[in-house]
Amino acid sequence: MNPTRFHWKGLEQVAAQVLSRAGVRGEDAQLVARSLVHADLRGVESHGLSRLPIYVQRIEAGLIELTQPPALVVRQGATALIDGKNQLGVVVGVAALDEAKQLARQHGIGLAGVRHSNHFGSCSYYAEQAVDEGLILLVLSNAPASMAPTGGIVPFFGTNPIAIGIPAGEQPPFLLDMATSVAARGKIALAAKKGSAIPEDWAIDADGLPTHDPTKALLGSLLPIGGAKGYGLAMFIDIVCGLLTGAAVGPGVKSLYDNWQDPQDIGHVFLCIDVQRFLPLDAFRQSMDAYIRQVKNVPTAPGVAEILIPGEIEQRIMTARKQDGIPFPQTVVEELAKLCSAYGIDLAQAVCTA
Amino acid sequence: MNPTRFHWKGLEQVAAQVLSRAGVRGEDAQLVARSLVHADLRGVESHGLSRLPIYVQRIEAGLIELTQPPALVVRQGATALIDGKNQLGVVVGVAALDEAKQLARQHGIGLAGVRHSNHFGSCSYYAEQAVDEGLILLVLSNAPASMAPTGGIVPFFGTNPIAIGIPAGEQPPFLLDMATSVAARGKIALAAKKGSAIPEDWAIDADGLPTHDPTKALLGSLLPIGGAKGYGLAMFIDIVCGLLTGAAVGPGVKSLYDNWQDPQDIGHVFLCIDVQRFLPLDAFRQSMDAYIRQVKNVPTAPGVAEILIPGEIEQRIMTARKQDGIPFPQTVVEELAKLCSAYGIDLAQAVCTA
Repeated sequence: MNPTRFHWKGLEQVAAQVLSRAGVRGEDAQLVARSLVHADLRGVESHGLSRLPIYVQRIEAGLIELTQPPALVVRQGATALIDGKNQLGVVVGVAALDEAKQLARQHGIGLAGVRHSNHFGSCSYYAEQAVDEGLILLVLSNAPASMAPTGGIVPFFGTNPIAIGIPAGEQPPFLLDMATSVAARGKIALAAKKGSAIPEDWAIDADGLPTHDPTKALLGSLLPIGGAKGYGLAMFIDIVCGLLTGAAVGPGVKSLYDNWQDPQDIGHVFLCIDVQRFLPLDAFRQSMDAYIRQVKNVPTAPGVAEILIPGEIEQRIMTARKQDGIPFPQTVVEELAKLCSAYGIDLAQAVCTA
Repeated sequence: MNPTRFHWKGLEQVAAQVLSRAGVRGEDAQLVARSLVHADLRGVESHGLSRLPIYVQRIEAGLIELTQPPALVVRQGATALIDGKNQLGVVVGVAALDEAKQLARQHGIGLAGVRHSNHFGSCSYYAEQAVDEGLILLVLSNAPASMAPTGGIVPFFGTNPIAIGIPAGEQPPFLLDMATSVAARGKIALAAKKGSAIPEDWAIDADGLPTHDPTKALLGSLLPIGGAKGYGLAMFIDIVCGLLTGAAVGPGVKSLYDNWQDPQDIGHVFLCIDVQRFLPLDAFRQSMDAYIRQVKNVPTAPGVAEILIPGEIEQRIMTARKQDGIPFPQTVVEELAKLCSAYGIDLAQAVCTA
């Protein structure tokens, strides 16, 4: 068997089966499976099925709550606070998304804060769902420490992501999904494996000095986008996701990979806006289409074939991968095969039959 | 007369008198004067009294509405849409801030979108006012085109700023006020005057190539923070401030300095969160204090004396300048003196008497 490409629906089934046998309730298993495969479909492998093994390991270690669902702590006006109850992050995230959408439909805008959650996958998973219903969504999350404040040398903030989804009409929707660090830690780890240098703006070493050496960078700290600006954004995200909701903040957020005693206690914020309070949705969709065309018509730099709007390239990858299958690196295939076989699931059922 | 330092209260009076004689209604003149001096107090000279002459010139040119106040177009649930009626931007901004605060107190969160506005000064002016009342505020605005989308070579987006204010207790509040471009156009213009080189990540030339030459950069386009990430943030801000509210977008936003036919038609978004829906304000203030101390205690890089939180340095400058006066470059003093004398106001009344 040399499975280079997998069918996305098959992968969803396989992942849901594994999660289900690991003890995750049926519907929850499907939500998580969909989130992971969605990331792989969009070419965001860092948040795809390569995360399934660690999710399952934390379940096996008894670090994830599988029975108690996320609970509404309080709903007042257009805001809500949700206790994730240490459920799988995607289960918590979807509950918060539903709450924020409902509040936005009722009040024009809705904010759902979340505490006691876990790694909740790719933010664009939520943004895309809101966009499909004609809503604008802003998603924020804190994350385990990997980035020092500007001037500091010890990781304090996570790569705290921001995702924003805005519906369009015939054009692909606006789907921005970004970390507040210049580069992901995974990219630096990859450079270290390959023995290649990294750009100077990615990280500092343990002494706080700029470095091109990925090995030294891994012992140091990631750098935020735009210097003190990205530090400010990461701090803002930590405050609203953590201090405001009652989740952990800063180095108090536990690592998905390195901490085997405690729940992660991640916090999120879901902010949803109902476009229709401002103008009819159809009119907005048409404005977005015209606007996107205008952006794409800006003259390009030498060697640039096309201006892409946020999320456009991922949308194209998704279309191609839905048709041609999802390719995985051999290491991921081996990890998944091992996991599947431990749970008596046949990964081969997801292989594309050309 | 060699006035190196001015008293902030004296400057507020002088600016309000000039605006008032130029036709601005009493209370509005004071709002604008306060905003400009507030920026100078915080050391943000680019948004201080150096803008007073251009504000007055646009008033004299009949490009600003002085009589009709901003109007509420619609208020529904926790959202509102305000028509700035082409009033001075600060007058519009303060009206929108008041609306967002009121909505947040009522619904926990409030969003005020604004169309048909003008340059509204420093965003931190609004953020600080919300913070003083124990509220979290996020302010967004679009701006005249100066930044190309990633891959493009012609300015399309403004330096679209984000400001965020979060109250603390004994510690200074969190006050982030940032453009989504790496550098301000004013900094490049200054380098051009001095004949000094600029860093490669500030701008591209008219052909879309990286440049260290500020003169070429001024004919080209500013670069966003974090590459495509900053481009995405600037586009998001343009969409919600412009498309959603009915203000201009992209190159449709008119220049404060170069367009003498049309109103600027800038759009803003004010998003306010009432902390008390999540936890008692005192408890939040205490958490913020502890959190800020934790950030400031992160070990520092060689040569770094102290980790500063967003807004901290500006707060210190403000304290010093309230006591010692505000120093202005001679060019600004001359411009102000000229403007004042044209309106029969004595600038000397604001000079510090040591």
